[in-house]
Formats: sequence, C-alpha cells, structure tokens
Amino acid sequence: MSQAAANIDLYPSRIEPEPRITPRQDPVVWSESRAGAPISETEIAHYEENGYLILPDVFVGAELDNLIAAADVALARHGIDDTTVIEEPESRAVRSIFEIHRQNEHLGAVARDPRLANVARFLLGDEAYIHQSRLNYKPGFEGKDFWWHSDFETWHIEDGMPRMRALSMSVMLTDNLVCNGPLLLVNGSHKHYVACVGETPREHYKASLKKQEYGVPDHDSIRKLSERGIRAALARAGSVVIFDCNILHGSGSNISPYPRSNVFFVYNAMSNRCAEPFSGQPPRPQHIANRAHIEPV
Amino acid sequence: MSQAAANIDLYPSRIEPEPRITPRQDPVVWSESRAGAPISETEIAHYEENGYLILPDVFVGAELDNLIAAADVALARHGIDDTTVIEEPESRAVRSIFEIHRQNEHLGAVARDPRLANVARFLLGDEAYIHQSRLNYKPGFEGKDFWWHSDFETWHIEDGMPRMRALSMSVMLTDNLVCNGPLLLVNGSHKHYVACVGETPREHYKASLKKQEYGVPDHDSIRKLSERGIRAALARAGSVVIFDCNILHGSGSNISPYPRSNVFFVYNAMSNRCAEPFSGQPPRPQHIANRAHIEPV
Repeated sequence: MSQAAANIDLYPSRIEPEPRITPRQDPVVWSESRAGAPISETEIAHYEENGYLILPDVFVGAELDNLIAAADVALARHGIDDTTVIEEPESRAVRSIFEIHRQNEHLGAVARDPRLANVARFLLGDEAYIHQSRLNYKPGFEGKDFWWHSDFETWHIEDGMPRMRALSMSVMLTDNLVCNGPLLLVNGSHKHYVACVGETPREHYKASLKKQEYGVPDHDSIRKLSERGIRAALARAGSVVIFDCNILHGSGSNISPYPRSNVFFVYNAMSNRCAEPFSGQPPRPQHIANRAHIEPV
Repeated sequence: MSQAAANIDLYPSRIEPEPRITPRQDPVVWSESRAGAPISETEIAHYEENGYLILPDVFVGAELDNLIAAADVALARHGIDDTTVIEEPESRAVRSIFEIHRQNEHLGAVARDPRLANVARFLLGDEAYIHQSRLNYKPGFEGKDFWWHSDFETWHIEDGMPRMRALSMSVMLTDNLVCNGPLLLVNGSHKHYVACVGETPREHYKASLKKQEYGVPDHDSIRKLSERGIRAALARAGSVVIFDCNILHGSGSNISPYPRSNVFFVYNAMSNRCAEPFSGQPPRPQHIANRAHIEPV
C-alpha cells in the first residue's frame, strides 16, 4: 500500500462498546527478498509464524559484563533525566528509564549494533529508527505481574503509529527463568488485532506505565488467541528476544529473589513514522514516543 | 530418636526477634533399607538431595478423566461441607476444599492408591495417615501469587507436628505450565529450618489460608537458601509431585487463561502424630489439621 494510506485508521480501537478481533492487515516480515538476510530461513519462518524470535547469547563474556555495568550506572541515575524514570508504585525503586539510548552512550551503541539493527531493518523491510527505548529493572521478591497487551494497540491509538511495521528487541541483562516472571508471549496472536473497549482518558500514559487499565484486551479475546499456546521467553543474560509490535504479551509476578532486567528498543520503519494519535488526543511525551529524533539507526 | 523425644521442640520458630537458619535434624528418606522400594534408586536420591520428586503421568486416559470429573463434582460443592471451603479473597470463587479425602469417595480412594501410599510409606519409613487434604483450584487470569513458606513450620508451630516426617503429594488435574503459576520449589531448602519472626496471632489460620503473614521466611533467608536454584514443578495433568514437608515453596501469579488445579494429600508418619501446638495456642480445626481420624492409608 502507498504512504498516502497512512492517515486512514486501519486499526480502530477504544471506540466500540464490545471488543472485536480482526485480521492483521500488514505483513509480519516486510522484506520480500531473503537475499542477504541476517537471520536464517528457519528463524524468519519462526518469527513470521509465532510473532517472536530468541537470539541466544548475542552478548557474552566481557561484552556482556560491560553491558551490565553500563546498565548499573544508568540504574543509579547517573546522567539520567528524572522525568524519564518510572518508579515501582509502592517502593519508589526504579522500574524503567525511558529514552535510554539517548541518555547512555553504551546502551545507545547497542541500539545501533548491527547484530540488532540489521535484523530490524530486514524484518521491517526499511531503514529503522528508535520509536521508544528503555532500561527495565524488575526487582526480586516484589516484581508485580504485567497484564496482557499489544504494544501496537497503544502506539497506534496514543502515538499515531499507522501500520504494524515496528518490532521490539529486548536485550536480557539477567537470566530469564521460569521463576522470575519471564516475558510471556501469546503464540501467533500478532496475526490478529484486538480492538479494546473504553475511551482513552487524558494523560493516560502517566498511570498506564505503572498499571495499564485502558487499551487492555478482554478475557474472551485473550482466551481465543491463546489456543495456540503461550510461550515464555526463557534465555540467559546476553540473549535478545525479538517480538512483533502486535503480539500479545505480559508477565507474571516475580516472587523469586532474582531480579529481571533488560534493555529494550522499539524499532519502527522510517516509512511508518507516527502521525497524529488516532485517539484525537495530544501525543505522549517525547521520551515515551519519539517524534523529535527520526534518524535511522 | 525415641518417641519420648516428641514433646521437645526441636524446631522453635516465631519466638526470636531475628530469623535464624538451622540444619534439619531429621532424615529426608526414613526407610533405611532400599529393598522393595516402590521408586528407583535415582528417584530416591533425587528426593533426598532436592526435596521433591515428580512422577510423570501416574494417571492417564479414562482414569484421569474420571479423576477430573470427580474433582468437578466437588468444586461444584456437591456433598461438601461449607466450613471446609476457602474462597478467593476478592471473587468468592472456590480456591480450596479441605478434608476432601473424607468428603469425596473417588478422591479419598486416590489418597489410598498404592501408587501414592506405597511411596509415602517408603519415604516416611512408617505407616502413614492423612494429616491434611485439599482440592485446590487456581482460576485463569486471577490466580494470585503465594509467598514462600515451609509447610512444616506451620504444622509444627500451629498443629504440634513434632518431626520432619511428613510429605505432600499433589496430583495435578491440569497441566502445570510456565505460564499458569506453577509450584516453585527452592531446591535443597528442605535441609534447613528457617525460624520465622513474630508471634502467631490467635485464629491465624482464618487469614493465613488466604494470605499468610506470620510464619513466613524473610528475604535474606530465602536468598541464602536459593543459591542452589529454584525449580518449577512443570508436568502434565495426571502427574504427581511429591515434596518434603520442609521444602520452601510458593507460586507466582497466574495471568494466563489456563486454570491450575490439583488434589493434595499430606501424609504424616503414624509415629509422628501431632501433639499440642508448639505455639501454646489451641489446635487448628479438624478439617485443616486432622486429629480425629488417625488411621493408616
């Protein structure tokens, strides 16, 4: 489809009184040619079919140690703008730092690392820029669960992202184990769009980053889309989990003593940059939805 | 040690102002001879070392179907005394039915099934009776997490169980998956006793069955005992998980659409029947801690 179609709302949500599941109207893998692909045919097929892909042990040894050290510096708020920090609702502990790729040189370099960026460009079939980045820290013992959601639903409605031509990469800084609240992915759900119920309240992002209450899918829709199973992104520190912008995902609580931490980049196709939010409300702040720095990684 | 030692408090708890970890003073596997053991040498060693054992697919096919059907009848409260039912704090949905082996004939027969009872007798080195039984149902979407605890700490302090000569068997009625809040076990923690902080309030059991706040181990103790890792009891419906009375265990929340259900029997050695509670308070009710029906399974 042409760029001119970008302003048509292909994925309405938070309008109808009943939830509705409709088919995805975009490819999952946008590159038509496989020539020079940075991942294997099997990996491409897995991503297309299931909506996610784990690249094990991308960062190992000293490179991983340095990455973790850089994250620790950021988590101690060195060089970090307070307005980009999200704290745990009850304990004030750092939960996320947004726009991390612009605030920490080392983590910014990871976003541009060809092992990540080449895969993003290939899957999106375009040059890519960072729509959102963050460093996440989910502490041991007190990490709460995170309800099922499609990132795209929010990015579309609240940020004006026109098409499903974006993806996330989560670089794991700790082992992701069964017991520490790993990322859970509803297998194959990226091929369906769940229109959610309820209008978006003003400045919804302030509450939703702690606990999302609008733009969340209903139980029946989740049950239907879970027929193909739910997968956990279990992998060692240094692995990278890639997942489509529209896959339903969430995570359970973490009662284990082990923290869970990752650095997270959202790559959006240059041709898919955000327009006016489809909610009709003002855009979310720059550090949550990048509109000011649209340069290819 | 002799039966006469039963009244000495080998495992004090809820007395000191600081938590304390002391070594277990009892064997894990009480049978000295392996002759005629109902499980393999490898299985015995696994149980001794790690504190738990999974017997996969004990009930399959029609036998499993009938077991699930019997549980469904009980969950619909047919033939169930209301005073034995625990409901979810917020939704009133059935969470547990106690003394299930005496209220449902089919499930009572499972408690006496030689595939379970023979293993209990062997590990306890004695005839065994049911100290507690329950049918658990953890619904999809809304199952909350359950904090780390040693069952023995409670049974000792609140029920007067003298020694670590009891074990639990959980017969899984649903698949236990990474995504539906599986039982988590702190590997090897059964070899240590965590004395907890804080006196037991009167009628503590009424609140503790929904959310335990006393007799819970502190973060530092859990962290220390987790050095050997945390295991999830992942297995198909029809499998049986056996775990020592003193192993630290808990479970995360269940945000998946899949419920988690099991029928659960606590086997105690006939020689280890409960004395006066070490808390000095009145015993818990019969349906929670059996004192009236001490007959071998």
